[in-house]
Formats: sequence, C-alpha cells, structure tokens
Amino acid sequence: MNIDAVELRRVAIPLVTPFRTSFGTQTARDVLLVRVITDRAEGWAECGALSHPVYSSEYTDGAEHLIADELLPRLFAAGDRLNADLVAQLLEPVRGHRMAKSAVETAVLDAQLKAAGVPLGSHLGATATHVVSGVSVSIYDEVPQLLDAVSGYLESGYRRIKLKIEPGWDLEPVAAVRDRFGSGLLLQVDANSAYTRADARHLARLDEFGLLMIEQPLDEEDVAGHAELARVVRTPICLDESVVSARSAYEAIRTGACAIINIKPGRVGGYLEARRVHDLCTAAGIPVWVGGMLETGIGRAANLALGGLPGFTLPSDISASDRYFAQDLTEPIRMVDGRIEIPTAPGIGGAPIPDVLEQLTVSRQVVKP
Amino acid sequence: MNIDAVELRRVAIPLVTPFRTSFGTQTARDVLLVRVITDRAEGWAECGALSHPVYSSEYTDGAEHLIADELLPRLFAAGDRLNADLVAQLLEPVRGHRMAKSAVETAVLDAQLKAAGVPLGSHLGATATHVVSGVSVSIYDEVPQLLDAVSGYLESGYRRIKLKIEPGWDLEPVAAVRDRFGSGLLLQVDANSAYTRADARHLARLDEFGLLMIEQPLDEEDVAGHAELARVVRTPICLDESVVSARSAYEAIRTGACAIINIKPGRVGGYLEARRVHDLCTAAGIPVWVGGMLETGIGRAANLALGGLPGFTLPSDISASDRYFAQDLTEPIRMVDGRIEIPTAPGIGGAPIPDVLEQLTVSRQVVKP
Amino acid sequence: MNIDAVELRRVAIPLVTPFRTSFGTQTARDVLLVRVITDRAEGWAECGALSHPVYSSEYTDGAEHLIADELLPRLFAAGDRLNADLVAQLLEPVRGHRMAKSAVETAVLDAQLKAAGVPLGSHLGATATHVVSGVSVSIYDEVPQLLDAVSGYLESGYRRIKLKIEPGWDLEPVAAVRDRFGSGLLLQVDANSAYTRADARHLARLDEFGLLMIEQPLDEEDVAGHAELARVVRTPICLDESVVSARSAYEAIRTGACAIINIKPGRVGGYLEARRVHDLCTAAGIPVWVGGMLETGIGRAANLALGGLPGFTLPSDISASDRYFAQDLTEPIRMVDGRIEIPTAPGIGGAPIPDVLEQLTVSRQVVKP
Amino acid sequence: MNIDAVELRRVAIPLVTPFRTSFGTQTARDVLLVRVITDRAEGWAECGALSHPVYSSEYTDGAEHLIADELLPRLFAAGDRLNADLVAQLLEPVRGHRMAKSAVETAVLDAQLKAAGVPLGSHLGATATHVVSGVSVSIYDEVPQLLDAVSGYLESGYRRIKLKIEPGWDLEPVAAVRDRFGSGLLLQVDANSAYTRADARHLARLDEFGLLMIEQPLDEEDVAGHAELARVVRTPICLDESVVSARSAYEAIRTGACAIINIKPGRVGGYLEARRVHDLCTAAGIPVWVGGMLETGIGRAANLALGGLPGFTLPSDISASDRYFAQDLTEPIRMVDGRIEIPTAPGIGGAPIPDVLEQLTVSRQVVKP
Repeated sequence: MNIDAVELRRVAIPLVTPFRTSFGTQTARDVLLVRVITDRAEGWAECGALSHPVYSSEYTDGAEHLIADELLPRLFAAGDRLNADLVAQLLEPVRGHRMAKSAVETAVLDAQLKAAGVPLGSHLGATATHVVSGVSVSIYDEVPQLLDAVSGYLESGYRRIKLKIEPGWDLEPVAAVRDRFGSGLLLQVDANSAYTRADARHLARLDEFGLLMIEQPLDEEDVAGHAELARVVRTPICLDESVVSARSAYEAIRTGACAIINIKPGRVGGYLEARRVHDLCTAAGIPVWVGGMLETGIGRAANLALGGLPGFTLPSDISASDRYFAQDLTEPIRMVDGRIEIPTAPGIGGAPIPDVLEQLTVSRQVVKP
Repeated sequence: MNIDAVELRRVAIPLVTPFRTSFGTQTARDVLLVRVITDRAEGWAECGALSHPVYSSEYTDGAEHLIADELLPRLFAAGDRLNADLVAQLLEPVRGHRMAKSAVETAVLDAQLKAAGVPLGSHLGATATHVVSGVSVSIYDEVPQLLDAVSGYLESGYRRIKLKIEPGWDLEPVAAVRDRFGSGLLLQVDANSAYTRADARHLARLDEFGLLMIEQPLDEEDVAGHAELARVVRTPICLDESVVSARSAYEAIRTGACAIINIKPGRVGGYLEARRVHDLCTAAGIPVWVGGMLETGIGRAANLALGGLPGFTLPSDISASDRYFAQDLTEPIRMVDGRIEIPTAPGIGGAPIPDVLEQLTVSRQVVKP
Repeated sequence: MNIDAVELRRVAIPLVTPFRTSFGTQTARDVLLVRVITDRAEGWAECGALSHPVYSSEYTDGAEHLIADELLPRLFAAGDRLNADLVAQLLEPVRGHRMAKSAVETAVLDAQLKAAGVPLGSHLGATATHVVSGVSVSIYDEVPQLLDAVSGYLESGYRRIKLKIEPGWDLEPVAAVRDRFGSGLLLQVDANSAYTRADARHLARLDEFGLLMIEQPLDEEDVAGHAELARVVRTPICLDESVVSARSAYEAIRTGACAIINIKPGRVGGYLEARRVHDLCTAAGIPVWVGGMLETGIGRAANLALGGLPGFTLPSDISASDRYFAQDLTEPIRMVDGRIEIPTAPGIGGAPIPDVLEQLTVSRQVVKP
Repeated sequence: MNIDAVELRRVAIPLVTPFRTSFGTQTARDVLLVRVITDRAEGWAECGALSHPVYSSEYTDGAEHLIADELLPRLFAAGDRLNADLVAQLLEPVRGHRMAKSAVETAVLDAQLKAAGVPLGSHLGATATHVVSGVSVSIYDEVPQLLDAVSGYLESGYRRIKLKIEPGWDLEPVAAVRDRFGSGLLLQVDANSAYTRADARHLARLDEFGLLMIEQPLDEEDVAGHAELARVVRTPICLDESVVSARSAYEAIRTGACAIINIKPGRVGGYLEARRVHDLCTAAGIPVWVGGMLETGIGRAANLALGGLPGFTLPSDISASDRYFAQDLTEPIRMVDGRIEIPTAPGIGGAPIPDVLEQLTVSRQVVKP
C-alpha cells in the first residue's frame, strides 16, 4: 500500500447538552479527523484527543501538529512497504502521543480493510453482533436534575448508568440514584482521577451502594495508589487513564491495582494494541469494556467492532449518536433494546457524510510524502 | 508579582561535534527560551525539550505551542497572586508536558529570585560551592575514535566518563575504555532505554567492568522491568526517563527499580520538584546526580545550583560550555580542575548575552495577559 | 553571614489552664529562646523541648547546656560561610538533640530571611494564605468537664478536635464527644505512646467512632509495632514521636507503619527537614498536618508558615494564642472563622514584644564566638 | 534498700596513646562515676558517655546534669521500696538517656549485690570463668604505624584484632594487616556508622579478606539500610549503636539487619537489659560479644561479668587496663594467655582505689533525697 496524501481535518460539532466531568465542562466536540488516501482505498479515523490536555497530555491542536510534523514523515518513509501492522513500529521512536498514533494507524487500517473487503470486527476477532449500551452521565448542579437525566436515559433504553463523580458530588448523587431506581440498576461511577490516596475511607463509603465499579479514582500515574486503595475499598476498581498499553495493563493487574479495565483504543495507541490489552485481560481473568472519548460516528463505529470481542463482558460506554449530537458526521448510530449493532461494512464501518462534513469543517490541511 | 508579557524565543546553536545516542544523532541544539517580564524583574529559562519527541513525548515546536496556548493563559489567570510556588498548582490541570511547565516555572522563579536578590542555589539549599563535572560521550562508529574522544575529555579534566550505549555498542567499547584508562577511571554507561527485559543476562556481562551504574536500560514505562533487572545485574541501575516526579521516584525506589537516580529538572517539572526528588532520595539512601539535556548556559547555570544540594554525591553530567558549543548563549561556563563553580548571582545565574542571543535567534513571539 | 553573639534566654509563661497528656500535667510553659545576632540581621527561634525529658529525650535545661557547649562552637567554626542550609551539616556530628538543633537553625534562618526580606512561608514554598486551626484537648478527670471544654472550643471556632487519650480514658470520652457533637465533627485522638502492641484489639474498638486518626499509640521506638497495629485497626494510624527525620518517615511509610504523619519541625531537626518530610509524604500519598509543642507566638508563627505547604491537607494543631496563654510573647495569634493567617513579614514572622519578654524572662546567657 | 546520698564524681584519666575513630580522636578519658550510698552498702558505677555527643546523643556533662536533676528525684521517690529491678521502671518516663540510666541502675545493683554478698557474674548467670580478650585498634595516619601497633597487641596476647575504619582508611589497612599476619588472624572492622547505603559495593570489597564482621557500617538510625547492605555484602554485619534495647535488637534481627550484635550495657540501659538482649540473641541464633566505651576498671569489671554468659561466643573488646591507662582507677585488670578472669568479689567487682580516685577527680557533687 502506498500513501498518496493525508488530509487532517478539524471539525466542530455542538453537543446536545453540556457534558461535565471532574476535568471541566464541554459544550462542543472539537475533533481531528485523519484521512489517508492510498493507491488502493482511502481510510478515515478520528483522534480521541480533547481540545485541552486535561484528560491526557494530548490535545487537538497538539495532535494535529504532531501528526503532520512528526508522525507522517515517519509513515511516508516506509514507502510501499506500508501496512497497518507496520505503523506502530514506524512510529515507535516517538514517545507517547498514543491518540495521535492511533488515529494514523486506524486510518491506514481502514484503508487496508476496505481494499480487502474485510470489516474491522472480523479482522479483530469479534464474536458478537451487538454491543450492550451504557451511558455516561454528566455532573449536575443539583440531584433532582441528575435524577431527571438518568430517568430519561433509562427510558431511552440504556442498560447501565455511569455517574461522573468528584469530591463533593459522590455519596449524595449515588445514594439518590440507587434510592430512586432500585438495586437492580447496573450502576457505576467514574472519578476521572479526582481523588487522592487519603480519600480511601471516604470512597469506601460507596461500598454500600452495590456499584459495578469505581473508575479511575486516583491520578493516572498513581497505579500503586490504586493497589493500596483496593485493599480498603470493596467495590472493584477499574482503571482508565492509567492503562496506556498492554504492558501497563499487565503491571496494573499483577500488582492488584485494578479488577476491571476500561479499554479506549486511542489511549492505548490503536485497535491492534486494544486487542492485545483485551487478550491479556482475558488471560488474567479481568473483565473489560469499551470506553469512549465523545466520538463521532467515525470513531464510534470502530469502537463497536472492538466491543464484539469475547472478553468485553461488561456494558460499554458506547451510546447512540443522539446521546451527544443532533447531527452526527455519519449516518446516526442507533440503539435498539439497549444494544447497538456492530457494523458489517468493510473497514471501520463509519464514513462521514460529505455534505455534513463540509458544513462542520473548521480547517483542513493536506500532507503529502 | 504581576506578569507584563512572556517572550518565547527559538534559538539554534551549532554543536561543536555531532552527538549520537540510541535515539539518533544531533548536530545542532534547537532551543526554546522563555522570558517572563514582570513588574519587579525579568526571568529567563530554557526548555529541555529536543527537536523531536524521541527522548520524551515533548519536542520544541510542541512545547512552544503548548506554552503559548495552554500554559500561559492559566498562569495569567493568577494575576498578581503569582509566585513560583504557585505555578505548579496553576498548571496542574494540564497533564504531562513537564519540560514545558518547568520552563515556565523556572522563568518565574528566576524573576522572583532576582527581585529578592537571592541566588537559586541559596533558595534551593545548596551547601556546596562547586559541582564535579563529568562528560557524556557519544556513540562512535569505531572504538579507536571513542578512545581518542575519551582521552581528550580526560585531558580536559573531566572526572567521570559516561558512555552512551545501545545494542551492538556496549561490551566492546566499555572493555576498551576500561582497558585503556584503568580501573581508577569513574565510568558509567547510559542506554537511553534501548534494551529489553530479555537482555538482562547480556547486561550482566557489564558487571565485570566496575561501572558506577547502568542508566535507564529499559523502556521508561517499564519500571517493574528495572526492578527485575536489578535482581540479575549487580551493577547499580540508575533511572532517568522513568522518574518524572517525586511520586514516581518514590515508587521506583520502593519497588527496587533503581539504586541511583539521575535528576533532570525539566523531566520532573522544575527545580522545586527536582529538590523534592533529591530530598526523597536522600531520605531513602539513594544517591543522585544532575543529568543534562544539552542545555545552553541558561539551563546549565540553574542545573549547577541544583547540583550543590548535599545529596548530589555522584559526578554530574554538567560539562563546560565548550564541550558542546563554540559560542554559548551566556558567558561560557568553565571547568577548573574538573569542577564548575555554582553561580552566585541572584536568580538562576545565567543570562543571555544580548548580541549573541539576537544573532542566534530563529523566531520569537510575545504573549501578553 | 557572620554571627556576633547568640543569646539564650529562658522564659516562663503561665498556661491559662493546666494541660494534661499521658506524659503528665503542665501548668506553665518553660521555654528556651535562641536569638542569633549577625552582621546583617538578628533572628529568633524557640526550642520545642519541654521542662522534662518525657516527650522526647530533650528537655529545656539540657537543651540550653547543649546549645551553649556543643552546638554553638560548631556553628561559630563556620565563620562568615554560615548560612541556614549549612547549619544541619555543621551540627551533624552531634547525634540526636534535634529540637536544640532546630532552634539554632531556625534562628539563623530567621536572620537570613529577614536580611533578604523574604517571609518563611515564601522560602519554604507555602501556597496557602491561612491554616485551618484545630485544638488539642487535655485529659480530664470526668467526661462532663471534657464535654464542656470541647463545647467551648467549638464555640471559639476550632474546626477539629483532638482528644488526648491514655489507657482508662479512651473509649468512654470518645463515645461521649461523638454522641454529643455528632458525626460531622472532625475528631481524632492522640495517645502519646501510652499503649502497647497487646492493646491492638482494644484500640480497634475506636474504629466505630469515625476518627480521622489515632496518633502515636505505641512507643516511639516501636515503628514495627505500628505497622502490625495498622493491620488490626481500621482507623488510620498517625505517627508523631517516631518520625524524627525524612529517613525515618520514609521507612515508616514504606513498612506501612503510618497512613498520616504529624510534622513538628523541632522533632525532625528544623523547618528545612520538615519540608523534606512534607515533600516525601506528598510523593508517597501520605497526608500531613502541623503538630505543636505548646509554642509561644515565636514558634507558632514559624509553624504557620510550614502549614501553608500544599501537602498539609489535614487541620493543624495550631491554635490561637489565647488557647494557651493570657499574654503571649508576641502579638497574639488570632483565629478567624477557624483559620489563622500565615505571617507575611520577613523571616519567621513572630518577634517577641520587648517589654513582655523582659518581664517573663527567668535567665539569659550570651555566647560569643 | 534506702538511699542516703548519691555522689556524682568526674574523673579525668590520660590515655597511654591517642585513640582515633571515625568520630574523632581522644587523648584522655573524661569519666562520670556514680556512687550510691545506701543503708546497707554502697555501690559504684561508671557512665559510658563520652565527653561529646558524637557516639550517641549522651555526653558526660549532659549525663551528670540529667542524673542529678531528672533521674535521682525519680529514684528517691521510691523510698525504701528501691531495688535494682525497680530502677528501669522508675526511670521509664524519661525518654532515651540509656547510659545515664545504666549508671544509676548499676550503682544500685552493685550496692544490692554487695549487701547480699553475690558477685554480678553469678547474678547475671555467667557460666564461664574467663573472657577472651580482643583489642580495638585506632585509625593511624600510615599503614606501617598500624602494622607496628597490631604487632604489639598480638605480642601482648590479644586474640582478636578490630580495626577502626572510615572512608579512605579501609581496604588498604585491612589488606595490609591480613597480608602481614596471615589468614589465621581473627580480624574484624568497626566503621562507627561512617558509611552510607551508597557504599555497599565498596564495602563488599572487604569480603575477600575473611573478616569476622563489619561493625555498624551505617548510621545508627538506618537499621533498614543495614538489612539492604546485608544483601550485597557477604561479610556478616554486626550492629552496635543501632541496638539500644531488646526490642530494637529483635526488630534488627527479624528484618535481617544484622548477623551479630555487639552488646554494650550502657547503650541498652544497663546490665539487666543487656542480659535480655543476650537471651534474645541466643534464642534467635545471633552470636554476641561485649563491646566497650574505654571503661576504667570499674565499668570493665562489670563488663567481664556479663561476658561470662553462654551466648558470648565471640571474642570481646575487653582489654587489659594497660591497653588504655598507665594508672587505672582500680587494681589493674590483667590479661593472661589472651583471657581475662571474671571477678568473683560481691557486686560488680571493681572498686576505685581511694588515693588514685582523689588524685584524678576533677569535680564531685552529692545529691540527697
């Protein structure tokens, strides 16, 4: 496969409702898209980076610059030897920047699979046809607003509720949701690293609410702290930000820092490494689920393919398009009976609608070998 | 202290000789300087990032963009409450990017100390007046070239030799240097993460050469691998890239991953955190030394101040200006009898010479609140 | 800086109410003050030692003798090289006697910072402007007296209550305070090493009262016993007497002997080592707070500066002057809304009022180089 | 037993030759003697404290003051209940100051045993009649001087040689002594805490010389460091300063910090605790030997009694009087065939010769109940 050109496109899509986590509040999604034009097919991918480097060190502007200046020259250097499996190796001298690398690899993979007529799910080894859909619920100012929101999501059919928490918004909203919707509700919380080791006993007070898990309570660099926390808190600890590769997943599991892992393909450098994290977790008896970075239909389609692998036994964070966007970049992803179908088209299965894409595009640049 | 403006300046300085490590070869130093202009004094600092993200995820272009777009707005938001101790807290929501943060904090600290008339060494608690100077020796194509280079450095007075190694350039050059210069030579090696856990027994063959340490043999993210390595290799393991904070230092020490730490202030987010790493290591009985990022006289001066703290019992990587540059940005830093004097001027002690600075400047931008 | 003379002054200040701990009862504070007169400024400090060697091996008479005969000659030997960072190194050959050393170092530091116009808080890296004030409550003969006392302190605005306990005065008073003032009260206990390993199950009965911590339950030399206790008692263990240096803090943390540390600068040899203990604890995820030795306004001012560092996330034992003294040596330290402002004057920020000082002085001696 | 008065007497005895350790050089022994006058007999003891607080925090002046002001009032408070076993309990509220406490307890014990007509050896459980005598050899400026000194001691009949070492005086003198006197010589070294953890590999180079032990290489507070060292150095590690009680002995043994313990009765608070340390070591399979503090015949006699216990399987540091003093305070202690006889007189077995005592006395004070 030979690359003719790579297009980097910035798109801004309004959110249907502001989304607040311990990192701050978002009202629109500022997305970087990567389009790889090869001699055989073209591939699309979406970079998970947010507008500011608050979830991880990557951010949209920085990722665009890095891809253009540092990643693509290394990719182009491979000439016609290029294929998706080679991308990680070509980009390995560049430290970190896994979301940017993931976007590049995924676009190459999309092109390659399209050329071969193979859907991503088949390529990765998915055994399911659908993914169970959960929803991630913003931090609200008041508990009644939260209860209304959760109520709406449950009516829409979401099968699992994840509450974003932070110090000051934890015990009360969890208790209220449990109280209102009963013990049968699949409920979990996500702290996005807003707590410290000293909060161990406070977090243990969540034990009584029968949560599926507490996601990433401590700083992403404090893996050892999660292991310590897990000796005090009975609710299973799930890692998100801390797991950036199969190796880091192995060490986190080995040291008792997590009982569950949230796999976000961008965070670990792409779908091929995401599968390796999945395989390792399966080997070690650690359940996994697919997280999300407010993806448009492009990234969301690829995430669905991943979610079809057999180790993904917990409900995903993959919601329908209308959870976040009035108008998605692709045909809308729909949830039926709390489940979403894994795409069967060749490649990642999510292609932008040209008109919509043009309309929402903020900027584009084309990089050639 | 109130900031009036911040200047970001890019400077390119030719190296006197190409410098090759396992990451690649450099022939010039592309430096980002930060100048903070306040109502009381102005401060300078140098960002340790290299031109490409191969040592860490940071690189000069990326750091410049991040400082301008993400860090300075957060700094300006503090208004006249600003002081050096507050910088880390203000920038904490931004993940990673420690070299960029360090440059900003150091420039603020330089301004603050100049306004107070206090040298950085005094502020940090330096008890020494000089730092013992070692030299870092490039990878060469042939052993004879290496021996000539080492010979020259020893004649110049350097008191410790550090050989850069990589697979294929390790046992032979080390044996040759030991053979030629005798067992009295203080000798160590630096692998810049070029090996893997599977190389443990190969690296153990270095034990017979009486090295002071093997620096960062494995991937920076593989801290647990270093602990495993330390159970096979008798030569002390020193960490560089893996230690990015006092917390990561604590965990590396606690788990037996290192017996020595190379402290680079930029890598850990600044001189204040560097002191915390030093203090922690002293408490835990771990010797430390000051590493380097091919700094100009600006960064080198500040590194000297740090090197005066009592835990810095191993020779530093701080060489004289003429080791790297025919013309430094500052008055040249000179080595006498294998030692370099710690600056006693207020602030970091290294200020650019205006004419030289202008001549070597490639670009500049000014950011105002 | 050159020392012209050092004055050692003994002062006796009546306590507003007798203070009883497991060590005994005090009715007045017999304080040793150190005044360093240099060519640039003069510095004051207060020695934490009590009248008798029951809290630690140091006591006021002994400390005065040691400073005059053993410490000052070593200090004077430095001549004009003297600065605060050098003091610990000069006094290092003398084993133990950390409170005496701390007083000497602090007086030198006060003089040095005054000469430079820098407040101690800035020098240490304080990021807060106020310290949250808790109160330490004496052992009483009867529970009703205790409840009255606690009630009074809460009305005064103290935000955290610490009960001194000893065998025979533990479960009952804690239960009574919890019962009377509710679960919202921040409550902790301090045993001043009055228990033994055999009391583990008895101390575990405190778990039900939701205490912030149990302070120093076992002998100061029994660090390993605290680690054992921590496996039986759920309430976090805080160490006081056992932590006399950053090194001992490191070992206590590493071996699981404490989850919290009370930092008293005198106990660890001074404010510079206290900062190192703070930094280490922050790296290891251990919360800290500032303890006290019934300091007058001189020592209390310096403690406030320390308490402004970011790792001091638990309420301090620093109370207002009127908690202990009808007439403090300095301008009274006042609590407003349960908080005390960190001094902003250069140096430690607490200077004796000449008239009051003369009136309360019991003896003085002047030592010259 | 009822105390009528206690005499504290200071005596200065010239050394036959200066004695240099890593702490400094001594040319005379400044001793504090305690004489307890009771209604039944009078007892003598000698305080191990040196003139300056460099071996431990205790020193002669400080010990004299503490005994007079803090210990004796607590002793007198017991009235006629007083006996030797009660002393430790009476003095327990005073932290530390074990040498001072030991002197008080030993004088009471001497009086009590004299009244009962029982020698100290019998009281402690000695099973031997003689103690094997080793000698502690000063640091010298040059190796030839050292060899001459060792040669002289061997000719005198000493059966074991202990070299004082410090950085810069270690490998060379040890090699020279081993080379000159052969592999049959019982040889050990004493570092008096002059090294750090970072010297582990350097100390391991002593392994080749077949030493009996390395005594107290690291700081007395760094027990964990000795455990770490013991994993690198093959020569057995012996603790001295770090062991101050049976409890600290237990923890040091349990954590692998020592393979041998040097028991000095003063350091552990007296002969009764020294026996407990001996008993514990025997239970744990740790050989012990009797160390020394340059005692006069008074303290040396008591040490001999202790050395008769069955666990003392290694040669002692108890030399003949003429090793240190031209004129001892007591009848001279003599070595025959490398052994010294354990006294059989009631009490500790060493009483000062009145004339000599008067002549060497520098000061005396008498304290009465």
